[in-house]
Amino acid sequence: MLTLYDFMGSGNGYKVRLLLAQLGLEYTLVERDILKGETRTPEFLAKNPNGRIPTLQLEDGTHLAESDAILWYLAEGTRFAPETRLERAQTLQWMFFEQYSHEPYIAVARFWKHFFAKLTPQQEIELPSRMEKGYAALGVMERHLARNRFFVGDRYGIADIALYGYTHVACEGDFNLDNFPQVNAWLARVADEPGHVIMEHKN
Amino acid sequence: MLTLYDFMGSGNGYKVRLLLAQLGLEYTLVERDILKGETRTPEFLAKNPNGRIPTLQLEDGTHLAESDAILWYLAEGTRFAPETRLERAQTLQWMFFEQYSHEPYIAVARFWKHFFAKLTPQQEIELPSRMEKGYAALGVMERHLARNRFFVGDRYGIADIALYGYTHVACEGDFNLDNFPQVNAWLARVADEPGHVIMEHKN
Repeated sequence: MLTLYDFMGSGNGYKVRLLLAQLGLEYTLVERDILKGETRTPEFLAKNPNGRIPTLQLEDGTHLAESDAILWYLAEGTRFAPETRLERAQTLQWMFFEQYSHEPYIAVARFWKHFFAKLTPQQEIELPSRMEKGYAALGVMERHLARNRFFVGDRYGIADIALYGYTHVACEGDFNLDNFPQVNAWLARVADEPGHVIMEHKN
Repeated sequence: MLTLYDFMGSGNGYKVRLLLAQLGLEYTLVERDILKGETRTPEFLAKNPNGRIPTLQLEDGTHLAESDAILWYLAEGTRFAPETRLERAQTLQWMFFEQYSHEPYIAVARFWKHFFAKLTPQQEIELPSRMEKGYAALGVMERHLARNRFFVGDRYGIADIALYGYTHVACEGDFNLDNFPQVNAWLARVADEPGHVIMEHKN
């Protein structure tokens, strides 16, 4: 049985829960509260030395970290995986875009605003730049979606799941998506996919 | 013929140049000076809407962005690619670690210190935290390398290339690697690989 160490408010964790649900895979969910440092204990660091959720424990006891690497592992051989060499590279291109140019801005701004009553002075200083770069990432997505129904190969796959994780809760970071009609239409298409589950879903 | 749009001082670009050299692939190098905004021109944004190097133009004219996605594309079917489902996921785990937990700290601190005569006030504020998180990433690598010669599958591959890119120039960001003997030994092993080229290498 797979065991997923996760925090229910995490978009990175939700990506994995969404794919597991759509694959119909059973798993044990073990919650770790990142707000209480529960991923920085010696016990957890033995599973993932980088101290982050989601971390997936495979049947043989191996631990796998990094949400998008876990998506890749779970999707192999299924309809959610890219099919060609170029589509594999394009899927990874969007996943690295998500982790480098999207998540540090949209997810971090949302984390600060959604989970804490008050920003620290340093967060107040950084917030405008994070918001600006988050909107830039949404702009890149908007332009791509003007000519594509999904991110890669004209069908729903793990690149969409990776980008959906935090885009669909960008509003919780006070991002206004009114000027991103293509992104909104894509969010609706993703939510319409068979087996879709919401973020608070537990197995 | 492949065309690589690149900036010679970029560790992300160097990853791709290193693998291209070790694969013995011919390519046309087109330099774009990121310090002069040459990746944010309309002409370049048509190639990569995210406005970043490295960007690889394939034989059919398709553009591929994100250094680690480009490594994956180039390595497919070669000895630099992971061989099993688990090794593919572990390779991606280290590549996403590199882009999320390593590059934003080590590469960015190096960029500020190496390319500019003076830090901005905001950079001065952020630098201690960037350095701390950079050392944390080096610590994660050190612990893994205490039990492994290379990052995945006991042999040199694209996970090593991804992590080598900025680790080997961490000193240019004033990171002191004296307390990371395993990382130093691994850096030497990577530099000893057949066909290794230095960062300033042009095709």
